[in-house]
Amino acid sequence: MLKRIAIVGVGLIGASVALALKKANAVETIVGIDSDPVSLQQAAACNAIDISGTITDIGNADVILLAIPVRQIAKTLAGLLPNLGANTIVIDTGSTKQDVTAAAIAALGSRVRQFVPCHPIAGGEIHGPLAADAELFVGKNVVITPLAENSLKTIQEVREIWQTTGANIVEMSAATHDEVFAAVSHLPHLLAFVLVDELASRQNARMLFEHAASGFRDFTRIAGSSPEMWRDVAINNRAALMVELDAFLKSATRLRDLVGDSNEQEIFAMMRRAQEARAHWLAGNLDQFNDKSA
Amino acid sequence: MLKRIAIVGVGLIGASVALALKKANAVETIVGIDSDPVSLQQAAACNAIDISGTITDIGNADVILLAIPVRQIAKTLAGLLPNLGANTIVIDTGSTKQDVTAAAIAALGSRVRQFVPCHPIAGGEIHGPLAADAELFVGKNVVITPLAENSLKTIQEVREIWQTTGANIVEMSAATHDEVFAAVSHLPHLLAFVLVDELASRQNARMLFEHAASGFRDFTRIAGSSPEMWRDVAINNRAALMVELDAFLKSATRLRDLVGDSNEQEIFAMMRRAQEARAHWLAGNLDQFNDKSA
Repeated sequence: MLKRIAIVGVGLIGASVALALKKANAVETIVGIDSDPVSLQQAAACNAIDISGTITDIGNADVILLAIPVRQIAKTLAGLLPNLGANTIVIDTGSTKQDVTAAAIAALGSRVRQFVPCHPIAGGEIHGPLAADAELFVGKNVVITPLAENSLKTIQEVREIWQTTGANIVEMSAATHDEVFAAVSHLPHLLAFVLVDELASRQNARMLFEHAASGFRDFTRIAGSSPEMWRDVAINNRAALMVELDAFLKSATRLRDLVGDSNEQEIFAMMRRAQEARAHWLAGNLDQFNDKSA
Repeated sequence: MLKRIAIVGVGLIGASVALALKKANAVETIVGIDSDPVSLQQAAACNAIDISGTITDIGNADVILLAIPVRQIAKTLAGLLPNLGANTIVIDTGSTKQDVTAAAIAALGSRVRQFVPCHPIAGGEIHGPLAADAELFVGKNVVITPLAENSLKTIQEVREIWQTTGANIVEMSAATHDEVFAAVSHLPHLLAFVLVDELASRQNARMLFEHAASGFRDFTRIAGSSPEMWRDVAINNRAALMVELDAFLKSATRLRDLVGDSNEQEIFAMMRRAQEARAHWLAGNLDQFNDKSA
């Protein structure tokens, strides 16, 4: 059992990690830190945190979890450094990893060996500690992108923390992480946002939204996500995202031309490939997919 | 109570209409017609139909519902015409309406007064009579695009049939229908198909799909829909769909350029507009939207 874990940012992710670790009896005391006093009150009310603290007094926690916007990580790490205990492990939950890694190296110097970049693949359009759920990570992936400076022992401890929440642990490089999630997460979010904005800007927007149904609702669910967070993702993972945007625009333009040409054979072939791929994915038949690195 | 309704095509939509009308005690006998004997057996097994029939012996039904692919409507109407009773009403369920209207006029001539184009906004990736549900249309919209040749009495009878299933009836022109659904339904379907196909074609597709999560699942749910049906929609509603594809490509290209320029103010503004529009839509605050025809 760990003695003390500090959760910096007690929103959905931070408070859910707290509840999961408490449920597993994995920690004695959880300290919550948040710039928003209402979030701290709510996190305490739902027993996610035991006490509240400040950046300067959590340096000797066993683990410090940064569940905060990616852009705040550098400054927070710099604030932690003066009091950071020699055996304290620091992890984050950001959606982009190369930028976080660079920020951590810049902020922590040689102490970056104590920082392990993490990305739990959970959460979405719901925010705040009131939505926290001890089961949020059960069966979900948590991607860890270890640094060359991390010791195997440190990495193992981080794996065990996430395993305690019920998650599956996947290790990859930060660059691979950013490529993969640009394709399967960041790009779809941007497309959903831009479609909703496009239609809402029309003169007949009311009529359009009056007739939008469940297909549109699911397609645009991720456009209900935080604009602050996704702006940061778009900027911070720009290089990988530009590759994805260009690839998608090329494919979508090709489809546009197929429709313009009434090329029903090619349109049908494309749709059937997509339907089959999605069915394989849902059935867990991943062996049906190409398996070479790009 | 109607004496006899014929359902041509006893898939999800046809069988669900049958179950809904039976549940409401709105009809004495339902005749099922389908080229697939298995579907007919299944529709009979779940009590959606009472007897099976053929195109030539349903001409005197009170109502003939064509729940078949749009491309089969012209031929089916031509087959019905020789035996079509003077008071029989024919309706369809197709996702496109200008093409169906043109086909009906060509096939039926002056008897097109008996044909009322309809589009129930229900159904999706699930198919077949075994998925039929008497409640499928409850609270859903059914769009009716009456012809100049239809009598008010005929239109009223069609409204009542759909109302019996629990649906809300909306009347508009076929052209408006095709514009609206190109934007809120056909375009999202095409984008979902093309994204899944794009990612599945990659050399590292396995890794991508291994990390695709719930956001991707919902965004691409409509890519699980029938390729046959959506190929037909793409071809049959080509003109309206090209307008939408071009508008979307323009907006997506603009977003790509904003990302390339790291223009965080504009990216954030776009995302916030989208998030707010979607929230207004989900809350039913349609007064927040522009309300001019295009």
